[in-house]
Amino acid sequence: MFLNNFFNKRVNPVFFAILVLLSLNSNAQQPVDFVNPFIGTSNYGATFPGPIAPRGMASISPFNVAGPQNLPLEKDSRWLSNPYVYENTFLTGFSQVNLSGVGCPELGVLLLMPTTGEVETNHLKYGTTYSKEVAKAGYYTSTLDKYNIKAEFTTSKRVGVSKFTFPKGQSNILLNLGLGLTNEQGAMVKIVSSTEIEGMRSVGSFCYNSPEAAYPVYFVAKFSKPADNFGVWKKPTTYKGLEAQWMGYNGKTRLMDASKKMVAGDSIGTYFSYKFDKIETVEVKVGVSYVSIENARENLEKETSNKSFNDVYEESYTAWNNLLSRIKVEGGTKDDKTVFYTALYHTLIHPNTLNDYNGEYPEIKTGNIGKTKGTRYTVFSLWDTYRNLHQLMSLVYPQQQSNMIKSMLEMYDENGWLPKWELNSTETFTMVGDPASIVITDTYLKGIKDFDVEKAYEAMLKSADQIENNPLRPGLKDYIEKGYLTTENGGSVSTTEEYNAADYSIALLAKELGKKEDYKRFKNRSISYRKLFDKNLKLLRPKNKDGNWYEPFDPLAGANFTKNVGFIEGNAWQYAFMIPHDILGLKKLMGGNKGFTKQLQKVFDEDQFDMANEPDIAYPYLFNYVRGQEWRSQKLVKKLVKQYFKNTPDGIPGNDDTGTMSAWLVYSMMGIYPIAPGEPKYTITTPMFDKITIQLDTTYYKNNELIIERESNSNGNIQHILLNGKKHNSYFINHKELVEGKKIKIILK
Amino acid sequence: MFLNNFFNKRVNPVFFAILVLLSLNSNAQQPVDFVNPFIGTSNYGATFPGPIAPRGMASISPFNVAGPQNLPLEKDSRWLSNPYVYENTFLTGFSQVNLSGVGCPELGVLLLMPTTGEVETNHLKYGTTYSKEVAKAGYYTSTLDKYNIKAEFTTSKRVGVSKFTFPKGQSNILLNLGLGLTNEQGAMVKIVSSTEIEGMRSVGSFCYNSPEAAYPVYFVAKFSKPADNFGVWKKPTTYKGLEAQWMGYNGKTRLMDASKKMVAGDSIGTYFSYKFDKIETVEVKVGVSYVSIENARENLEKETSNKSFNDVYEESYTAWNNLLSRIKVEGGTKDDKTVFYTALYHTLIHPNTLNDYNGEYPEIKTGNIGKTKGTRYTVFSLWDTYRNLHQLMSLVYPQQQSNMIKSMLEMYDENGWLPKWELNSTETFTMVGDPASIVITDTYLKGIKDFDVEKAYEAMLKSADQIENNPLRPGLKDYIEKGYLTTENGGSVSTTEEYNAADYSIALLAKELGKKEDYKRFKNRSISYRKLFDKNLKLLRPKNKDGNWYEPFDPLAGANFTKNVGFIEGNAWQYAFMIPHDILGLKKLMGGNKGFTKQLQKVFDEDQFDMANEPDIAYPYLFNYVRGQEWRSQKLVKKLVKQYFKNTPDGIPGNDDTGTMSAWLVYSMMGIYPIAPGEPKYTITTPMFDKITIQLDTTYYKNNELIIERESNSNGNIQHILLNGKKHNSYFINHKELVEGKKIKIILK
Repeated sequence: MFLNNFFNKRVNPVFFAILVLLSLNSNAQQPVDFVNPFIGTSNYGATFPGPIAPRGMASISPFNVAGPQNLPLEKDSRWLSNPYVYENTFLTGFSQVNLSGVGCPELGVLLLMPTTGEVETNHLKYGTTYSKEVAKAGYYTSTLDKYNIKAEFTTSKRVGVSKFTFPKGQSNILLNLGLGLTNEQGAMVKIVSSTEIEGMRSVGSFCYNSPEAAYPVYFVAKFSKPADNFGVWKKPTTYKGLEAQWMGYNGKTRLMDASKKMVAGDSIGTYFSYKFDKIETVEVKVGVSYVSIENARENLEKETSNKSFNDVYEESYTAWNNLLSRIKVEGGTKDDKTVFYTALYHTLIHPNTLNDYNGEYPEIKTGNIGKTKGTRYTVFSLWDTYRNLHQLMSLVYPQQQSNMIKSMLEMYDENGWLPKWELNSTETFTMVGDPASIVITDTYLKGIKDFDVEKAYEAMLKSADQIENNPLRPGLKDYIEKGYLTTENGGSVSTTEEYNAADYSIALLAKELGKKEDYKRFKNRSISYRKLFDKNLKLLRPKNKDGNWYEPFDPLAGANFTKNVGFIEGNAWQYAFMIPHDILGLKKLMGGNKGFTKQLQKVFDEDQFDMANEPDIAYPYLFNYVRGQEWRSQKLVKKLVKQYFKNTPDGIPGNDDTGTMSAWLVYSMMGIYPIAPGEPKYTITTPMFDKITIQLDTTYYKNNELIIERESNSNGNIQHILLNGKKHNSYFINHKELVEGKKIKIILK
Repeated sequence: MFLNNFFNKRVNPVFFAILVLLSLNSNAQQPVDFVNPFIGTSNYGATFPGPIAPRGMASISPFNVAGPQNLPLEKDSRWLSNPYVYENTFLTGFSQVNLSGVGCPELGVLLLMPTTGEVETNHLKYGTTYSKEVAKAGYYTSTLDKYNIKAEFTTSKRVGVSKFTFPKGQSNILLNLGLGLTNEQGAMVKIVSSTEIEGMRSVGSFCYNSPEAAYPVYFVAKFSKPADNFGVWKKPTTYKGLEAQWMGYNGKTRLMDASKKMVAGDSIGTYFSYKFDKIETVEVKVGVSYVSIENARENLEKETSNKSFNDVYEESYTAWNNLLSRIKVEGGTKDDKTVFYTALYHTLIHPNTLNDYNGEYPEIKTGNIGKTKGTRYTVFSLWDTYRNLHQLMSLVYPQQQSNMIKSMLEMYDENGWLPKWELNSTETFTMVGDPASIVITDTYLKGIKDFDVEKAYEAMLKSADQIENNPLRPGLKDYIEKGYLTTENGGSVSTTEEYNAADYSIALLAKELGKKEDYKRFKNRSISYRKLFDKNLKLLRPKNKDGNWYEPFDPLAGANFTKNVGFIEGNAWQYAFMIPHDILGLKKLMGGNKGFTKQLQKVFDEDQFDMANEPDIAYPYLFNYVRGQEWRSQKLVKKLVKQYFKNTPDGIPGNDDTGTMSAWLVYSMMGIYPIAPGEPKYTITTPMFDKITIQLDTTYYKNNELIIERESNSNGNIQHILLNGKKHNSYFINHKELVEGKKIKIILK
């Protein structure tokens, strides 16, 4: 079990709690019961173990990244992007909005914290260790050691529901609006009554980018029992100079008892206090909204009023189970199922819902409030997700994928541009490339067409062709004129490859829409990476403005997220094969099948493959392009799955990247992989279950299910593939073939 | 002229502007035209020169107390209680809510500032010198030298109206919500459109007391022209440590261009920018409210929508003139009239209106929103104003005085206590004593009875008798048991005297209401100060807990606001005669008329009289208690008026104390003075005009006017006094006699 071979730093009672949980669930049959939200909470997976409804706006995470007790994984001492780290021990609250699996700090605010005794507002003093930690889909609990308070959490889509069981005596529920995961500050709060608080907190500056795009998250908190006493605290700046001498309260936190006055500032919070003469339970519902306090209140009321904690949890449980049950797996170990369903769970968190219950949401850039009839999605980490997550959505949740495309087109309407890395209606401009085009083409070519494709195409062309003031494609002039970006632009090789991939998708859609000229033009543009191919190195290499190779050039530089010239988050090896749309062309450049295979194998043999990041994420499958070498892919994928994806907190190789790593795992365990984003095709490898039944959405697909079967339990490689009983002579399969075939059967040797 | 003998520090072009203004007004006949709002803006008068409507909630003051250019009178370098100092030169905005004539910093926020060129948000950089300064009742203008912007201001009761005339080019209107007069911080803002802003700013901590009672002032700002660009700025904390390295914006102010998002924080502001191709004018209306943004907007709309700057000014001008015209003076120099009407103007600023247009106001302590049908007044600096300001209101503006009493009783309903030093529905507990009782009795005994006197009496008794948890009368137990406070309490002698005075008023009201037992009890209590009379010194002197005199005792200690034992803001001399209700008893203690006169004269001869503070403010009149010595009072009062009250910025002896110094001047120039607060009587001295006509309110008084005439223009002393032509054989006159007599005539020698 992972309990023994995981962290060697300490023996944590939490382990035993999980053990208990797992054994309690040992006769669980439902997919949802296999979800282990602790997976990804260590090793920088950046997931959080607390509850969230599918694609929920609200989520609750235990917050244990503040305070020196948590060093080295302490939020202010380093770049830390998650509110919770499995190894950490010092908990200072439960944040009510969170991102999952991202690489930059954001959200992690509205920190609810139950305490006992006198009100203490300094988190370094009120923080505590915790134990008896249990996490399930839609539910989290732990006990706060210092206070002997049992804390339980669940959520509806826009409301976090907390349940605190207090011992006898004075108990307090703090809402800290100063503390947060990021350096962003500023909040406003008003206590409405002894059972209600309203306010806002500033968030933003994802990746320390665009601080000017900081934005508010509004909230309303309702308490199941009226507080015996309540108030606001405010920690002001410490003044210097003569005048400060008169301020007995200079720099000191002040408690504004019984205050219902609006308070604003960089570091404020509220306390609700109770005097209990026996063990008592208080439930707190926190509705959130990115539009207004009124909407936060409506979200709370419409989703949770007159519902108990258990009612809300039951709804969340059912919602998760319904979605996760779209894929049923048979065979495999319990850990296999746990890893699989937890990964699927992680792909259903982002993109998440931005609109309120009434349909309102903040438009991107305009400052206006929009209104959607469907779902307005947000958190589009497209540089990550264009590679496989949206492909998974198209296959299993096409309605969601359709709505995501519609959300992207709404952004174009509002902002004039498709999203790149959109977060709560701010464009963070994180990473490079123009991935929206790929996602749109991929979706459309898979038959999900209920969106305005002409508008989409117009938007794609705009970012591909507008040379001046183009925020999506910096360096476009060089790219169009020379075929590549030069070292004048950071990450010139990576970006050239990304633009090539995007242009290929534009070409594919142009073809589909009968725009022949565009098809030709963009198909031509899509292979310009070849100009960066260094025949000697058999790698892509940056070129200077003058057309000469960048010197001196170290193909190894840039691994492990170190900075280098020409490449973003990777080195020359990790980008050499990131040409999913032109592997045949690349093969030729590399000297045909043999040279290609040799060079590709070198990546793995020389330890240049990075499972923890996206550029080389499809590499293991590329041997399928060489007839007779497919066994290498099968062997590699199986090895990587076993090695990196585990039923342990460190069971994701690195940042989950809003589900991209998880989507890789889901596809890989199902034995198919969307090898060339934008193209409606998959490549085939060994499934890791005996039988996989994917429920198809008949709104979009002819059949109501797709079965992938594996014959023979051996760990041998694939002998042949049957599609509806007929031999399928390829390791590739078109989307249409796949979803219209009832059953694909993989026969192992 | 004061222009020559005032400041020797510099020659300011402003002087000439004022000169021009004064000469333009040389044929002015209306009382309002005599108001010179610069009076009191130097010498710690703490008035401001900008516009305010009578008893207005909103007011605008030029703000020139920030930045090292203004040293030594710089707000952060010392205790400075006013937004404007006449001598200062560096202006950083125009604050939209202000207090007049107070001794502690408060309000002085919502700083509007017009600039040109690129947006600069650091007030130390955008600040400027100014010139062409003109101030009238309801109007202020100056020109900002750095930008060549003409700034003009007027106000309605709850709305500040600014008019900026910009040169060609880029112009900006900043609203700085970080900068303010006090150390209080925290604001929230949201730009609604290119013509509207809404938000709130925290204020409070008057006298650095009760920081936990900080409260919000809400505002809505509307611009007459849509901004070409707008945004919010935010100045965050400077982070330290590793994480700060990634923040390119660490500690730097960020501009959030075109943002309509809600922003909150300690240091934020907004900018509205224009590109003008010719000279252009923009008007900005700022509605304020202590209840809500909605009410601030309604105040703005109901009071000023569809009104131009000039319309609003005209209304303010008329409102001021109507009130000031209640007293018409004839004779005297122009400076005399200016000093007189400006003083009357200063008595009509505080207490000011707290309720919104719709009647709503924040209740004191409860946190609820109350609703008044009349006017809810606030800013009750009662330790000051009980001595003469309310007496002036009762005589000339009895309807206002009645409403003030009603507001005080509302506070009792809400808070359980009468006010002591109430400020925007917070009790600041500034100064000592229990002055509300004196104001109530004084008002009632003058025939202003349209309030619930039984409730008032109940409230008075509560603070007089409740020994435990009594926030108004600390030390009450000692006071009741021993007759005095001991040195265990700060200011024990001063406080004993104040309680005596309050108790005497309770006795008077008890008598009036037929409560004989109470009358006796409180009359007895009211003379307990006698136990603190040191026969050797002929002064009051602190006693220790054990009943012994406090040693060593220096009767001179405590002058000029230095701290000392036994006395608050004064020394033994300045408190020795502060027994207005028992001067006869005091005379006996001091050895009869002769001893009393000698001791009193000593105060003046030995320079122990402080015209700048309240305890000894009635001393000059006390010689009237000794037959044959009245000439001393006449001589002294005339001398003090000439010496301390001038048509110059330093023309008030010190803090105006929300009009108390001004009320002293108004009464003194009219030749009568309310010598014994609580008792409906006046003492008489030489009027400083030939004729004074007071318009009486016939709702309260039988006659519609009262005339005070002075015969002979000599500067001689009073020969005799005629009341309705009959000789009045006393230097005292009852209120009833006064207001029912049609004419009082003072015949000089």
